[in-house]
Amino acid sequence: MIVSSERLRLKKLESKIMTAEEAASLIEDGMTVGTSGFTPSGYPKEVPLALAKRAEKENLKINLYTGASVGDELDGALARAGVIAKRMPYQTNDSIRNSINSGKIEFVDIHLSHMPQMVRYGFLGKIDVAIIEAVAIRKDGGIVPATSVGNSPVFVQMAEKVIIELNESQPLELEGMHDIYIPKNPPYRKPIPITRTDKRIGTTYIPCDPQKIAAVVLTNRRDSVRPLAPVDETSKKISEHLIEFLENEVKHGRLPKTLLPLQSGVGNIANAVLRGLVDSPFEGLEFYSEVIQDAVFDLLDCGKMTVASGTSVTPSEEGLERFYKNIDFYRNKIILRPQEISNNPEVIRRLGVIAMNTAIEIDIYGHVNSTHIMGTKMMNGIGGSGDFIRNAYISIFATPSTAKNGAISCIVPMVSHVDHTEHDVMVVVTEQGLADLRGLSPKERAKEIIQKCAHPDYRDALMEYYKKAIDFSGSAHTPHILEEALSWHINYSKKGRMI
Amino acid sequence: MIVSSERLRLKKLESKIMTAEEAASLIEDGMTVGTSGFTPSGYPKEVPLALAKRAEKENLKINLYTGASVGDELDGALARAGVIAKRMPYQTNDSIRNSINSGKIEFVDIHLSHMPQMVRYGFLGKIDVAIIEAVAIRKDGGIVPATSVGNSPVFVQMAEKVIIELNESQPLELEGMHDIYIPKNPPYRKPIPITRTDKRIGTTYIPCDPQKIAAVVLTNRRDSVRPLAPVDETSKKISEHLIEFLENEVKHGRLPKTLLPLQSGVGNIANAVLRGLVDSPFEGLEFYSEVIQDAVFDLLDCGKMTVASGTSVTPSEEGLERFYKNIDFYRNKIILRPQEISNNPEVIRRLGVIAMNTAIEIDIYGHVNSTHIMGTKMMNGIGGSGDFIRNAYISIFATPSTAKNGAISCIVPMVSHVDHTEHDVMVVVTEQGLADLRGLSPKERAKEIIQKCAHPDYRDALMEYYKKAIDFSGSAHTPHILEEALSWHINYSKKGRMI
Ligand SMILES: CC(C)(COP(=O)(O)OP(=O)(O)OC[C@H]1O[C@@H](n2cnc3c(N)ncnc32)[C@H](O)[C@@H]1OP(=O)(O)O)[C@@H](O)C(=O)NCCC(=O)NCCS
Ligand SMILES: CC(C)(COP(=O)(O)OP(=O)(O)OC[C@H]1O[C@@H](n2cnc3c(N)ncnc32)[C@H](O)[C@@H]1OP(=O)(O)O)[C@@H](O)C(=O)NCCC(=O)NCCS
Repeated sequence: MIVSSERLRLKKLESKIMTAEEAASLIEDGMTVGTSGFTPSGYPKEVPLALAKRAEKENLKINLYTGASVGDELDGALARAGVIAKRMPYQTNDSIRNSINSGKIEFVDIHLSHMPQMVRYGFLGKIDVAIIEAVAIRKDGGIVPATSVGNSPVFVQMAEKVIIELNESQPLELEGMHDIYIPKNPPYRKPIPITRTDKRIGTTYIPCDPQKIAAVVLTNRRDSVRPLAPVDETSKKISEHLIEFLENEVKHGRLPKTLLPLQSGVGNIANAVLRGLVDSPFEGLEFYSEVIQDAVFDLLDCGKMTVASGTSVTPSEEGLERFYKNIDFYRNKIILRPQEISNNPEVIRRLGVIAMNTAIEIDIYGHVNSTHIMGTKMMNGIGGSGDFIRNAYISIFATPSTAKNGAISCIVPMVSHVDHTEHDVMVVVTEQGLADLRGLSPKERAKEIIQKCAHPDYRDALMEYYKKAIDFSGSAHTPHILEEALSWHINYSKKGRMI
Repeated sequence: MIVSSERLRLKKLESKIMTAEEAASLIEDGMTVGTSGFTPSGYPKEVPLALAKRAEKENLKINLYTGASVGDELDGALARAGVIAKRMPYQTNDSIRNSINSGKIEFVDIHLSHMPQMVRYGFLGKIDVAIIEAVAIRKDGGIVPATSVGNSPVFVQMAEKVIIELNESQPLELEGMHDIYIPKNPPYRKPIPITRTDKRIGTTYIPCDPQKIAAVVLTNRRDSVRPLAPVDETSKKISEHLIEFLENEVKHGRLPKTLLPLQSGVGNIANAVLRGLVDSPFEGLEFYSEVIQDAVFDLLDCGKMTVASGTSVTPSEEGLERFYKNIDFYRNKIILRPQEISNNPEVIRRLGVIAMNTAIEIDIYGHVNSTHIMGTKMMNGIGGSGDFIRNAYISIFATPSTAKNGAISCIVPMVSHVDHTEHDVMVVVTEQGLADLRGLSPKERAKEIIQKCAHPDYRDALMEYYKKAIDFSGSAHTPHILEEALSWHINYSKKGRMI
């Protein structure tokens, strides 16, 4: 491959061009590696694959830090090769998930906005090598990221050596979409000056001392994006309940007509909710979120949304085509920021973001489990959900009312793991209905959640537990019978049905 | 009582001077009342007592919103009189706690920094009447608060009518200590411009349209402050472990020599930890917290602390004397802010606050219960602990390793209620030792917490549970046996011992 001078603008770095195998040899056993990538978007591919190959013949363990989940060439290949000792802060890959749930990988599940500052504070040890996918390297060494920013700025800042995968499949037109701002450490930190979703506060590249760039690897391997399921009946109903709720908030003067900036989790439900907004009466919408999915393109295309700020663009294959084809249209409407900024409590609270995320299960008092199947097995991780919902103007959790063909109720007496407490959950919505929990006590919440959100097959049993718990506890603040609180999960594990 | 023109500076309000009984008659059945007060400090006393009296002969229910806990004249008297329907956001009073745990009062336990914005967003309904304790009323109607600010600014802003208890027992010299800043609602909110603990950004009074002031009640009843227990051996050991940890952080360059602004929960352990700093090598300390207790005076007096910012001054009786006597010395060193600012995520994260709070119980994976006894009975509430620890530079939870003379282990297999998740807890400390959890996976956390923090009487049993859970779950991410996870609590309820 020949590199164009548009991509590699600092001529002297030509001497650093090498194969993925050569670059991978810079990584030694026991090192901590920080990579670009946030969802299967903008992550390095060649060097990880070379590393996995090396591990076939060599004892090799590294700590792998990324922005969030990444593609299979990184998480999958390295997990299967047994290369990962410790992994932070999020994943969604089957291979790595299996390793995490069988004691082969130590996974640390932390808020996505906490990770970069913890790296900069020195709490997570030294970053030996950063591997960053880029569309170009500037004359000053500055790195123009690809379709995600994630933790790349802090990894580049803190790493001893930087390896760059210059990816020609990523269009040069991405340049200008990014807005890189790196907060200082206390006591020198200043207010983050974002006062509107569309405000840019940083540079369009990641500053990097060229001395640190130890390798440049050329590639044109594309992101392994994932298909989106068609919008199903359940997601559609959830979306309808939510839009009705938002309309009502506007009617009562608790939200402006243009709403406030929206955040949305990833996955099919989240996408369906956003898609529902295309046919809603709302106009002038803004998006201040993590991941920019297909439905956001729909909203930008139809003119109902004016700006979308995130840390990664992660469409389906079809969406990616559309994005690349109309990139000049989207360039002025999309801003990609470091996850430290996209997920920043300060900014989220200031802008008044409406946060919509998906739960695995929710209990009758409003506690949410986002991460653990039956209290023990890690699904993906908390991701940015905590960053957003704790600081949201309105915090919303959506889930289908049942899972596994109805054998599981997603509304339970007590969640088997807590990621978000009752203190942080204002609205719960399932295809059955929507529970508005603002200003409600636990007992009031229980009635609202059971009646509005539980599946009819489970409603009576939930109410029965609740009433029994009231009697048993003498009507304590949060009625529970500890001997029965987790029995639905225990039942499921033993009998394959919760009740 | 005759009111001095120094206290009541707006002459035309003299016509509003009335008895507590008259003022209380402005409050009608079904109303929502917002009062000043944060801890037994700066809360109204006369009107609540009159209201409780009225309820002897009349059916009277109100929703009571305050800053946090308040004195017995307010929470106690009204709870015993059965006047409170709904209570928000925090309490510590025996009478009200009993009512909450027997189904007589609906208590809503929310983050102290969330309450004021939820009031302003209109999420908690209308505030009919605000009752505010003040040291003076300015010519423009502006209210000079007493020893706490709490939620008074937002209640005054949003209330239809304002009743003022002008309290002559509170010295006029308090004027100038307060710093009142009220954020706008999104989308108009601006950065909160605090960049140093000692920076003042607002007014020294709560702005108030004089038209709203419906009553002025004169009093000289003092705050019912509470005594502090002498520092016991357990608290002393906790303090020593913590100071050793902080010294080590400085040594490794992860904290500056002057540390970063400290936050500390209330109560005896918190006070002991702060007192421990008097004999520590640290200098130039700052305090960015909620409540200013006796030990903070010690630190200011000895010159080791330069500034203390909080939302309330709540010393013991002896401390209060000392405070009043040296008020000119303390005036330049103490800043009292609204709880929306003292507890603000934006500011806490920017300043890099070191947050130290107390837990009821902590589990082997680092989840913290701050509020519920045996999973059902409300103790006090989450208070500001979540505001601080989620946004802290270092988040620390302290607890004695056992309670009830050793019958209870405060380190348990699974907490019976979660207020703070593993994602938010960096350090756990008991008199046994300190566990540094930064960057650790659940399994690594379990070993660290059991070995360093558990009481020797419980250590083996905890390790046994952990190992069994590893086998049972196939070494899942968070090993648990749901059938046994809460058995320690069930044992205690049945047999009076956890194991
Ligand atoms: C919670 C989360 C896993 C839901 O994802 P999703 O794709 O909408 O969920 P699905 O309904 O497809 O369920 C995923 C799996 O969990 C299973 N599941 C769902 N609810 C379950 C429950 N209550 N108990 C057990 N399993 C359950 C489903 O059956 C499915 O399993 P399968 O893949 O074996 O069929 C996902 O949103 C997540 O990881 N959230 C945390 C991070 C986050 O919020 N990020 C966004 C922040 S910006
Ligand atoms: C957690 C909290 C209750 C601890 O307070 P404390 O005064 O240090 O606690 P104590 O050790 O005196 O314990 C209080 C009571 O709980 C009991 N207790 C303590 N641990 C217990 C446990 N694990 N199980 C059951 N009871 C327990 C004690 O025995 C004592 O009961 P008693 O009054 O009947 O004797 C208190 O810090 C709190 O309310 N925190 C939440 C709010 C907060 O953090 N605010 C500060 C934010 S700035």
